[in-house]
Amino acid sequence: MSKTIPVIRNILEANDRLAEQLRKIYADKRLLALNLMSSPGAGKTSLLERTLTDLREVLRMAVIEGDLQTNNDAMRVAATGAQVVQINTDGGCHLNSSMILEALKQMDLTGLDVLFIENVGNLVCPAEFDLGEAGKIALLSVTEGDDKPEKYPLLFAESKVMLLNKIDLLPYVDFSLEKAARFARALNPEIIVFPVSCRTGEGLQPWYDWLCAAVRTQRGE
Amino acid sequence: MSKTIPVIRNILEANDRLAEQLRKIYADKRLLALNLMSSPGAGKTSLLERTLTDLREVLRMAVIEGDLQTNNDAMRVAATGAQVVQINTDGGCHLNSSMILEALKQMDLTGLDVLFIENVGNLVCPAEFDLGEAGKIALLSVTEGDDKPEKYPLLFAESKVMLLNKIDLLPYVDFSLEKAARFARALNPEIIVFPVSCRTGEGLQPWYDWLCAAVRTQRGE
Repeated sequence: MSKTIPVIRNILEANDRLAEQLRKIYADKRLLALNLMSSPGAGKTSLLERTLTDLREVLRMAVIEGDLQTNNDAMRVAATGAQVVQINTDGGCHLNSSMILEALKQMDLTGLDVLFIENVGNLVCPAEFDLGEAGKIALLSVTEGDDKPEKYPLLFAESKVMLLNKIDLLPYVDFSLEKAARFARALNPEIIVFPVSCRTGEGLQPWYDWLCAAVRTQRGE
Repeated sequence: MSKTIPVIRNILEANDRLAEQLRKIYADKRLLALNLMSSPGAGKTSLLERTLTDLREVLRMAVIEGDLQTNNDAMRVAATGAQVVQINTDGGCHLNSSMILEALKQMDLTGLDVLFIENVGNLVCPAEFDLGEAGKIALLSVTEGDDKPEKYPLLFAESKVMLLNKIDLLPYVDFSLEKAARFARALNPEIIVFPVSCRTGEGLQPWYDWLCAAVRTQRGE
C-alpha cells in the first residue's frame, strides 16, 4: 500500500486548492454551503425534500446531487421546485471540488441563501474531500446501528451536525440515541445532534432553527 | 480526474495479480471464499453470527473481518467459536488482496470449508477489488430503499447472491422486494435473491442450502 500513499496525497492537495476557490465563491455570494453525507439509504434526499418544502418561504435554497448513476434523486428534489444540478460520478465513490466548480457553472447563485451538496452515499471516502463547505452534515439512520460513529470515525469527527434519522423505527430496532451521540461526541465534542424522522417530520424544527441561524452567521448578521 | 485514472488502473492491476495467488490458495485447499459486501449497518456481521452458529455442525467456517477501526465485529464473530482475523484498514475504504494474503498467514486453513471475508461497509469501492473469491455476496437492508441496486450498480452486477435483510421491518418502511430483485436482475440476470431477517431467522434456510451446495461444488463433488 505504501506505493499508493503519495498519489492519494497529490489528489487531496489538488482538491484542496480547488476547495479554496469554492470557499471564495461562497464567501463572495454570502452563500451557506453544506456537504451532506451518509450511508446509502440513510435519508439524505428525504431530508432535502422536507427541508426544501418546509422552509420554502423562509430561505432560498439550491441543491447539487451526487450519484454514481441515475438522476432519481435530482428528480425528487426538483419536484419541490428547488434549483438542482445532478453530478454523475460514473462509479466514483465521492464528490470532489472540481465537480462542484463545474456544477456551479450551470447554476444561478444570485440571492441564494443555502447550497446543499448531497454527496455519494458512502460513510468513508466523501469525508476526505473538502468541497469548500461551511459545514459537513452527517446523517445516520437508526437502522444502521449506534456503533457507526466509532466504526467510521472521520465523517463524525469532521461534521458540525449529526442527524439521527428514522426515529419512527426506534421501537423495532436495537439503537440507543444516547450511545450514538456519546460515540460521536467522543470524536467531536462540539457536534450538534438532532434526532429526526424525515418520514413523519418529528424533530425537524430544531434542525430548521439551526439552519436559519447558520444562514444568518454566513451573512454576517 | 483524467490524471488519476492511470494510477487507479495500476493499483487494480497489482491487486489482480495478488488475487490470482489467492485463487490458487483457495483451489489448493478446496476452500470456498466468499466476499461479503454491503452499506454500513446492513447486517453483514449479524448474518455471519447466525450462519456460523446455525451451521456449526455442518460446515467448518472461518472469517476475515475488515473494518476502518475497532475490532467490534471480530469480537462478535469470535463469540460464535469461529476462527477470525481482524484487518483494520486505518481509514481505507475497501479490502485488497494484499491484506487478505497477510491475514491468511495468521490462519489455519486445514480442513476449512468456507472463508467469509466481511468487507468494509461501503456499497462502492469494495466491489472494484478482486479478492480471489469464488463469489461476491451483496447484502441490502430493506431500510435502505429498493432503488439501491440501480444507484450502486457494480456490486449488484458482480454478485452471485443478494440477501435482502431486515424483512421483519417491511411493515414499517416503503420497500418492494419485487422491485429490488427486478433492479438487481436487470444488471445481473443470474443473481440469486434471498429475503431474510438475521434478527428473527426468517428466510435463512434457502441461504444455508445455497451455501452447502456451493461448498460441494468447490470440493468438486
